[in-house]
Amino acid sequence: MPIIECVPNVSEGRRLEIIARFVDAIRAVAGVRLLDYSSDASHNRSVLTLAGEPAPLKAAILALFEQAVATIDLRTHKGEHPRMGAVDVVPFVPVEGVTMADCVSLAKETAAEVATRFGVPVFLYEDASTNPARKNLEDIRRGEFEGLAAKMAKPEWKPDFGGDTPHVSAGAAVIGARMPLIAYNINLATDRLDVAKKIASGIRHSSGGFRFVKAMGITLEDRKVVQVSMNLTNYEKTPLYRVFDVVKREAARYGVNVLESEIVGLVPAAALVATAKYFLQLEGFKHDQVLETRLRQSK
Amino acid sequence: MPIIECVPNVSEGRRLEIIARFVDAIRAVAGVRLLDYSSDASHNRSVLTLAGEPAPLKAAILALFEQAVATIDLRTHKGEHPRMGAVDVVPFVPVEGVTMADCVSLAKETAAEVATRFGVPVFLYEDASTNPARKNLEDIRRGEFEGLAAKMAKPEWKPDFGGDTPHVSAGAAVIGARMPLIAYNINLATDRLDVAKKIASGIRHSSGGFRFVKAMGITLEDRKVVQVSMNLTNYEKTPLYRVFDVVKREAARYGVNVLESEIVGLVPAAALVATAKYFLQLEGFKHDQVLETRLRQSK
Repeated sequence: MPIIECVPNVSEGRRLEIIARFVDAIRAVAGVRLLDYSSDASHNRSVLTLAGEPAPLKAAILALFEQAVATIDLRTHKGEHPRMGAVDVVPFVPVEGVTMADCVSLAKETAAEVATRFGVPVFLYEDASTNPARKNLEDIRRGEFEGLAAKMAKPEWKPDFGGDTPHVSAGAAVIGARMPLIAYNINLATDRLDVAKKIASGIRHSSGGFRFVKAMGITLEDRKVVQVSMNLTNYEKTPLYRVFDVVKREAARYGVNVLESEIVGLVPAAALVATAKYFLQLEGFKHDQVLETRLRQSK
Repeated sequence: MPIIECVPNVSEGRRLEIIARFVDAIRAVAGVRLLDYSSDASHNRSVLTLAGEPAPLKAAILALFEQAVATIDLRTHKGEHPRMGAVDVVPFVPVEGVTMADCVSLAKETAAEVATRFGVPVFLYEDASTNPARKNLEDIRRGEFEGLAAKMAKPEWKPDFGGDTPHVSAGAAVIGARMPLIAYNINLATDRLDVAKKIASGIRHSSGGFRFVKAMGITLEDRKVVQVSMNLTNYEKTPLYRVFDVVKREAARYGVNVLESEIVGLVPAAALVATAKYFLQLEGFKHDQVLETRLRQSK
């Protein structure tokens, strides 16, 4: 039984009766599980986490588009978070028994149907992108809904599916496939923000660090300590343990200890198993030696 | 959905057509999954790994007893491994959504029915034992099938269920509940057997070490290195990472490095997650943040 995770971001975080409609539309699809959802009023945005096999997942995303296009009008939408569509971003994430290529196929099929059924143009992103200049979400979304019509008038911003103009109220959507993202923070036993910033700068891709790390240094005001706050965008290629070890070593350079680390939200078991393997120097360990994995496989 | 693991040990490891009957009898029970089975001709013994909810698991064990009592005669059975019953040992192990108390109840219900239906006396062991002198399998089994009639004639060896004499051909069974057992080995980058033996002696319970560690030092002849070979009998109370760290430190005392470690067979995900938490200094991490756990819970 292949399992794909899907984490649609929707541009509505205030009207709870509307968010309830989205949740109900997804839950009505047999074979899809809604693992989590959260709404942020200041962002005016909701993030939903779904899981299931490809066909029901596609049906659930189409049901979500149907509700969102009918109820969200970006011409009057305000919020702190950048957005350009009613359903703003839809990543498909491989979890078990599926490849990234399967997720890319699902993203393209879903995108084609979104454009046809709802008249919402779709840009493909991350692993589903067919254009290196249109891989990063931030690049695609730059200018937001307000700048979208002008942007799409340029030949290099013709969408992957649908017409060359935004949907009048629902804008455009970004649909794609990516690895699971791990929100990982390391707290340092100091209030020296410069140390957290220097370490963040050293480990993040944008300033010369690991390929799949985004990082910044911040202060946790209530605790009077600093944090290296990170997103790990490919835990297979840039693993948790390597990031932890390097942060710990860099901190020691400034006479600072690691206080603790934290994972925010969900993490694939494989990321933790790889961490245990590393520190225990485990050789020859196979993922199906994990009792729970064997249980799932033998169903 | 509660999941219990059950690992019956049966006194037949040579006649494959008989072992096939055991496997078929278990597979015929709906709701039980046979995760693994292995037979050893020199031990003349097979170990089966089952998982499921309590009721089907009990049905599967009764089906196994029915086949084993009909086909195994301990009066003519020879093998290297100590044994006193056709179905020799049956541990129930909590995996998910069940407590040890649930497993103890299941062990007692199964034991009562085994004694009634098949006339096989049953001794309870480990967490199901109601007598501190009859907790360890080795103590109960000492004397084996050949000494069983004389042993059971003593008042302190009256069984927990069934009559005071062994079944004429099937002996007696040991049924109980225990934590998952992890077979864990650490290989040292040396051929000095005395170092492995000293470390094993230092960490095992019987000579003053950790409460839930059994250990010995052996030589891996084909690789010319030594190994600290262990069974961890309660990974919650004596965790993998603590054992690894202490072995590593003790080895350093002799100028020896850890070459690698290995887990033989299955390991509960929780044991690896706890290891990752320890080394990453993870705070506030909950098991349902593991994506796969959330998937199972939301079914």
